[in-house]
Amino acid sequence: MSAIPRRTVWFEAGSVRILDQRQLPWKVEVVGLATVAEVAAAIRDMAVRGAGCIGATAGYGMVLAASEARDWAELEALAVVLKSTRPTAVNLAWAVDRQLVAIRAAGFGDRAEVAQATAEAIADEDVAACAAIGRHGLELLGALAARNPGRPLNLLTHCNAGWLAFVDIGSATAPIYAAHEAGLPVHVWVDETRPRNQGARLTAWELGARGVPHTVIADNTGGHLMQRGLVDLVITGADRVTRAGDVANKIGTYLKALAARDNGLPFYVALPSSTFDWSVEDGLAGIPIEERGPDELAWIEGLDEKGVSSRVRILPQTSGARNDAFDVTPARLVTGLICERGVCAADAAAIHALFPEKRLAAATD
Amino acid sequence: MSAIPRRTVWFEAGSVRILDQRQLPWKVEVVGLATVAEVAAAIRDMAVRGAGCIGATAGYGMVLAASEARDWAELEALAVVLKSTRPTAVNLAWAVDRQLVAIRAAGFGDRAEVAQATAEAIADEDVAACAAIGRHGLELLGALAARNPGRPLNLLTHCNAGWLAFVDIGSATAPIYAAHEAGLPVHVWVDETRPRNQGARLTAWELGARGVPHTVIADNTGGHLMQRGLVDLVITGADRVTRAGDVANKIGTYLKALAARDNGLPFYVALPSSTFDWSVEDGLAGIPIEERGPDELAWIEGLDEKGVSSRVRILPQTSGARNDAFDVTPARLVTGLICERGVCAADAAAIHALFPEKRLAAATD
Repeated sequence: MSAIPRRTVWFEAGSVRILDQRQLPWKVEVVGLATVAEVAAAIRDMAVRGAGCIGATAGYGMVLAASEARDWAELEALAVVLKSTRPTAVNLAWAVDRQLVAIRAAGFGDRAEVAQATAEAIADEDVAACAAIGRHGLELLGALAARNPGRPLNLLTHCNAGWLAFVDIGSATAPIYAAHEAGLPVHVWVDETRPRNQGARLTAWELGARGVPHTVIADNTGGHLMQRGLVDLVITGADRVTRAGDVANKIGTYLKALAARDNGLPFYVALPSSTFDWSVEDGLAGIPIEERGPDELAWIEGLDEKGVSSRVRILPQTSGARNDAFDVTPARLVTGLICERGVCAADAAAIHALFPEKRLAAATD
Repeated sequence: MSAIPRRTVWFEAGSVRILDQRQLPWKVEVVGLATVAEVAAAIRDMAVRGAGCIGATAGYGMVLAASEARDWAELEALAVVLKSTRPTAVNLAWAVDRQLVAIRAAGFGDRAEVAQATAEAIADEDVAACAAIGRHGLELLGALAARNPGRPLNLLTHCNAGWLAFVDIGSATAPIYAAHEAGLPVHVWVDETRPRNQGARLTAWELGARGVPHTVIADNTGGHLMQRGLVDLVITGADRVTRAGDVANKIGTYLKALAARDNGLPFYVALPSSTFDWSVEDGLAGIPIEERGPDELAWIEGLDEKGVSSRVRILPQTSGARNDAFDVTPARLVTGLICERGVCAADAAAIHALFPEKRLAAATD
């Protein structure tokens, strides 16, 4: 059992260090990844997951790639290995491509130094972006609390867009942690998030570790709580957001957005700008949705009556399962995007106004 | 291991026989309930569950009550014991009250005979109602299939409103079984239905036992499948429907109704008339929603790697959970109700037209 590290991913003594999220909440274990193949496996098998954390891990993976590659062709091949591990989160490809651009600019001979500096920059910028998202989100929550004095704000979140999904602080959790630290009382409804239970296992664990009041609910429950006035605001992260504001996020996000709309509640998505895909307009048509193996639904892991980590099969042997990992919430259901530069509406014009330089880049791509 | 019985509940040799649904799909076990207390415990602990099955079980429970009671006061006290086991499904109170009315009409001396006859009538009528629902639903599915020739119809259902939830055939499954038997190709998306997994454990098992093609999905997945054109129609059962068409059903039903509406898909609710609560108009205000213990969410049961039934804890020890068992889908989201008398819109006028005698009863209550 390791102590809880400050960051979820970092580079130390020649290897990428990660917190193995598959062991949580039962065990805090830091592991070292010494090769590109090990980094790719850790991303694919979800030892690390979450948009920002995947991006930063891939960034550090490129440090190993720079060390392993003897020429440009090998470096590019290793980049492909990292990029092909998971299809939906855009931060992954973004981080790898940023490394390639930086190394190309510096020249192959300087690859080790440049890759290291770029990886640290990616991680540091992720931390800074999440902190800024926290500040902007706190303003939003403060205004909402002022309209509901004398009681905690009830926030609902889906999956884990927390500290564990980034390098530090998280995206959807950033305003929550900021509010909690500022003494603004909050209570978080944590969607269990089947089939991998990232809410129950990761979000609940990290909120608990920081003392934030929270309650785990089945994914089925959020709409009912909204109907009963028990939710003030929904906030999630994102794996990819189009330049028009469509949001790919963990499967089930769309259902919560529909319920928020039906109950007149704000539905916010928090993201660093590295999560935008400037090349895509229509999320339903343009974002690839990962389909994972049916065993993630058929088997479930927990602690048995003796406290031993164990897994049980919860489907009849005669039944198959389908396991889509993400869905797309159309921009029309999103109240606003909380980015490091501020809060904007989920539409092309507002996003363009916040990131004017990016639209231009997309147009010339 | 017992053979699969023909009905889910019946009376034999002085006891109420039920299929213990908590053992499914791992074990088919018929158990006998010899006292009212045992029947009440079986309903409360969900050895039997599902609107029609609970109603029929309570009807047979009143046979035992008639045998145990030495006077009217005792009979009425035992009726209260049965009625207070679960709050949301209206069939429970309906069956017990029907028994009391019948016994009062016949006189206390004839209570044994009348209770037995009434219990059989309740069960037989449940079977007949489900069969009629199957015929009406088949017409609907046939029309839908005619508009989509050359491929199976994709139906989505939530929880278990199947054979196991009634005495035979089921409500939401009745049109599915009827279609399958008529050679109309269907494929069913089965919502896992957290936290008790009635979809994964019960609906998947019973569809599999009858050879109906099906795939289990996380509760989060339905909206995504609808967005991708992979769902033709949603059909669920109900635990209580108001005279204006609001539907209380397993938690999460509301989210699927919202997604169906957002994607222009039909959302049908199948129910025998015993599931109507004629005394209630507004489901959100008037239907009590059962909150069950948090352990149903914190622990999950399945077969371990050795095939032994086992349970694991899936929440961090430091996190609490909330477990609302039902939600209310407003009538505005329901395309139609499939009842034993036919299909009608989910509004007061259409329901009244199908059951003119009931509105009068409600008005005079």
